[in-house]
Amino acid sequence: MVKRVAIVGAGVSGLSSIKCCLDEGLEPTCFERSSDIGGLWQYTEYVEEGRASLYESVVTNSSKEMSCYSDFPFPEDFPNFLPHPLFLEYLKMYADKFNLLKCIQFKTIVCNVKKCPDFSSSGQWEVTTEHEGKQESTIFDAVMVCTGYLTDPFLPLDTIPGISTFKGQYFHSREYKHPDLFKNKRVLVIGMGNSGADIAVDASRVAKKVLLSTTRGAWLINRLDHGCPSDIVFTSRFQSAFRDCLPTPVVNWLFAKKVNSWFDHENYGLVPESRTFIREPVLNGELLGCINTGKVLIKASVETVKENSVVFKNTPEEEPIDIIVFATGYTFAFPFLDESIVKVENNQASLYKYIFPTHLEKPTLAVIGLIRTSTSLVCTTEIQARWVTRVLKGLTKLPSPEAMIEDVDKRKANKPTGFGLHFDMPLQEDGVIYLDEISSFIDAKPNLLSLLLVDPLLAFKVFFGPLTSYQYRLTGPGKWDGARNAILTQWDRIIKPTKTRIVQKRPDTFSYLLKVFSFLALLVAVFLIFQ
Amino acid sequence: MVKRVAIVGAGVSGLSSIKCCLDEGLEPTCFERSSDIGGLWQYTEYVEEGRASLYESVVTNSSKEMSCYSDFPFPEDFPNFLPHPLFLEYLKMYADKFNLLKCIQFKTIVCNVKKCPDFSSSGQWEVTTEHEGKQESTIFDAVMVCTGYLTDPFLPLDTIPGISTFKGQYFHSREYKHPDLFKNKRVLVIGMGNSGADIAVDASRVAKKVLLSTTRGAWLINRLDHGCPSDIVFTSRFQSAFRDCLPTPVVNWLFAKKVNSWFDHENYGLVPESRTFIREPVLNGELLGCINTGKVLIKASVETVKENSVVFKNTPEEEPIDIIVFATGYTFAFPFLDESIVKVENNQASLYKYIFPTHLEKPTLAVIGLIRTSTSLVCTTEIQARWVTRVLKGLTKLPSPEAMIEDVDKRKANKPTGFGLHFDMPLQEDGVIYLDEISSFIDAKPNLLSLLLVDPLLAFKVFFGPLTSYQYRLTGPGKWDGARNAILTQWDRIIKPTKTRIVQKRPDTFSYLLKVFSFLALLVAVFLIFQ
Repeated sequence: MVKRVAIVGAGVSGLSSIKCCLDEGLEPTCFERSSDIGGLWQYTEYVEEGRASLYESVVTNSSKEMSCYSDFPFPEDFPNFLPHPLFLEYLKMYADKFNLLKCIQFKTIVCNVKKCPDFSSSGQWEVTTEHEGKQESTIFDAVMVCTGYLTDPFLPLDTIPGISTFKGQYFHSREYKHPDLFKNKRVLVIGMGNSGADIAVDASRVAKKVLLSTTRGAWLINRLDHGCPSDIVFTSRFQSAFRDCLPTPVVNWLFAKKVNSWFDHENYGLVPESRTFIREPVLNGELLGCINTGKVLIKASVETVKENSVVFKNTPEEEPIDIIVFATGYTFAFPFLDESIVKVENNQASLYKYIFPTHLEKPTLAVIGLIRTSTSLVCTTEIQARWVTRVLKGLTKLPSPEAMIEDVDKRKANKPTGFGLHFDMPLQEDGVIYLDEISSFIDAKPNLLSLLLVDPLLAFKVFFGPLTSYQYRLTGPGKWDGARNAILTQWDRIIKPTKTRIVQKRPDTFSYLLKVFSFLALLVAVFLIFQ
Repeated sequence: MVKRVAIVGAGVSGLSSIKCCLDEGLEPTCFERSSDIGGLWQYTEYVEEGRASLYESVVTNSSKEMSCYSDFPFPEDFPNFLPHPLFLEYLKMYADKFNLLKCIQFKTIVCNVKKCPDFSSSGQWEVTTEHEGKQESTIFDAVMVCTGYLTDPFLPLDTIPGISTFKGQYFHSREYKHPDLFKNKRVLVIGMGNSGADIAVDASRVAKKVLLSTTRGAWLINRLDHGCPSDIVFTSRFQSAFRDCLPTPVVNWLFAKKVNSWFDHENYGLVPESRTFIREPVLNGELLGCINTGKVLIKASVETVKENSVVFKNTPEEEPIDIIVFATGYTFAFPFLDESIVKVENNQASLYKYIFPTHLEKPTLAVIGLIRTSTSLVCTTEIQARWVTRVLKGLTKLPSPEAMIEDVDKRKANKPTGFGLHFDMPLQEDGVIYLDEISSFIDAKPNLLSLLLVDPLLAFKVFFGPLTSYQYRLTGPGKWDGARNAILTQWDRIIKPTKTRIVQKRPDTFSYLLKVFSFLALLVAVFLIFQ
């Protein structure tokens, strides 16, 4: 019977895991290498070895209603997209409210996690940690790995001919903190993910020139759609179901239509080379303006780097460059785990539902938060942790190893079946489908049919409205009484922080006349019908 | 017969005026108080007495195709919206190309412009200038005043109760150059015009907090509409004619519908209090994002200022504030002209078509560029200068003083007639109507009907396409042979600077299938019809 759980890392996933362990009556001990909670969101002015690193200007990609823990909505006056200090503040409020800090051992590095000799019967792990230079080993019934995937920078220098001759400065985006170093420099950012776009925009305000090189192009979308957070507008059960019943080419075509309705990606040199798979879109509302003022120029991939310049594919001119930033993403690894436990190949780990190693005799090790979905990582890690703690307690069973391996292999192949969404990056998944699937394992997925009978208004909001995490607290273990009200008031919390100047509504003469006219026309019609 | 023309100021209007004088064989002498051309666009790190002042981040409001001189398109690789150094570069290219510099006396201040004793017969002016401390008087046949309306800051301190007790820093937006001074400060920007919005956005990147106070609200629009410059999309003869034949309430309603389709202005506390008149919309693509990240908060007007804080109307809390920026606009004046020549009252001058004093015995003094329209000031000043030089040469006549006074009085009353657009600021005018009217005085307005017969493609573009200034060089005096081609290639020059990464177009399977299917369906239909 599992009781003592070791949790590695006190970031977003770690906090979810502690909370879920406590909810299930388990005894979590969380080891955190730094001196505070928040992981990635604990901003520091200097890069720290083994820890994820943020830049100063970073803002959450998901809006607050889409990225809160399911039983802990953001304060209503928090903005819709959170600069990092506010998001950290929220995490601290969460930790306070559920008294999570008492379970965390700070400044403690996990050096090694290995199976106990009697693992096949006990499922236990020996966890070796280091605190202030002193190593210690402890036996745990289970381990939840919450170290994320943003600590090991991927720096593909071997794919950039001539980089060794470059006399300027170059570094990985992980090293980037403030734009000051770009002042009056000619900057090249390689890679167009969220970081690449953000850094190019930051640099454009001080640099002499900014080039943003992308090999494959990207769909650029805005955090806001008609003034509403885009994720609120586009993440719903209805839309997911609609997508899922259409053939993949149609979904891709509709998706391209939608993103091109903001602006024509071809005219901006951004259009992705391949449309067969959907790459994670890049979220940036300012890049378009920067391109239109000539402050950022989009370039193809690098042909070759020279001493003080760069040549791009399909263009003869050399562009003088002082600084190159590699916004080329991350790889991940588990240095404290033996390869026999979790093996990482081509940025893929053999984890059932991105969580459980497929071949362990006992399911007492789980990886939380090693996934990217169209929904927020906060609710994704929470639902993962809820499932995992139920599995650890033996209340929910995993399939047979063979079934799990088959499921993982199918995902790795990642071939379009002809229907629904397909992503072309190893950690990507349709958020709605994933959340619904994991929640169904613990009976926390709302039953729409029965809801329709009991509470039609709520059923309507659950199907057509944004897929906020509160929906997974309506029913099942971990049911939260505030869930219904949280769903019904979600739009109020969205509008509250922007509507800070209240205007007395004056009658709009024309609208008023239009209404009067429509009413009269209706009267006449009714009169004519019953004449 | 007018020959020698004095031009006051070598900014955008001054350069137009020199060029038009030269084109008409007049002898212009331009007096410029600074040591370079460009006026407003000649950026300096420090505010200079008597000169307009820009902030570092400023970008043109009109796109390049809409804001070029009519016979001198921007280079095709220039971005669509120009940071100030690029716009100044363009002005210098223009001055070089038409050899304008030879007519300019730099570092020369115009102290006084007064009628010669025989003005009623000669129409001449005595212009007193000062250069390196030495005054000089010269007789000119005519004077063109090109000093703009952005030099005298309007600082309404008497409308802000308690401002004298404020212990923080406060200044007019004219003093603003860089955001550095806002670092970690709590900033209040009063006034939501273009400068106010720009300064709030700039400050939001470094300040602790930014509040933007607006009494009347504003329609916020983006420089880009679906990726195209908005002015290109919304400034056409077709749209102007359409607006003009609809009653004002309908135009206002449609306008509100359109701007609210970007985002609901009510939810953002921005909706204007009065919708009867259309205020000049505020152009800013970044403010919305700043509001959504909580970096800028919109506030109502100031109720009272205290030592270190501000209270806003309808809200009880005091907001701690360190710096107040008054983005409250400008007034204008002509210190070198006697009030009997041009009188300014309530920010209105009695100028016929914003140009000619109505009561002079001879029409030998003109004010260029004292107008704000929905189109760019560059083409507006140019068409004004073209008309003025024709009037100076006696080739075009002005109406009687009575007719001119009546016209000015009608404009000052600025009452909605029930049809078309109405602005509620003294210098505002519908750009398309104004350009067409002034150009018709010199027979430079394109004749659509005859164009339709001779060159239907061009006629189509002139009526439905963007109202670019080249259209006023198709015919009449000042006809330019390159005008037709400039119109036909305007879209190429818009796309060129953004399409800097060329992607090989791959066939889109779904679109292809859709086409094949449509073709087959057509075949079947034809077959069935002729069966």
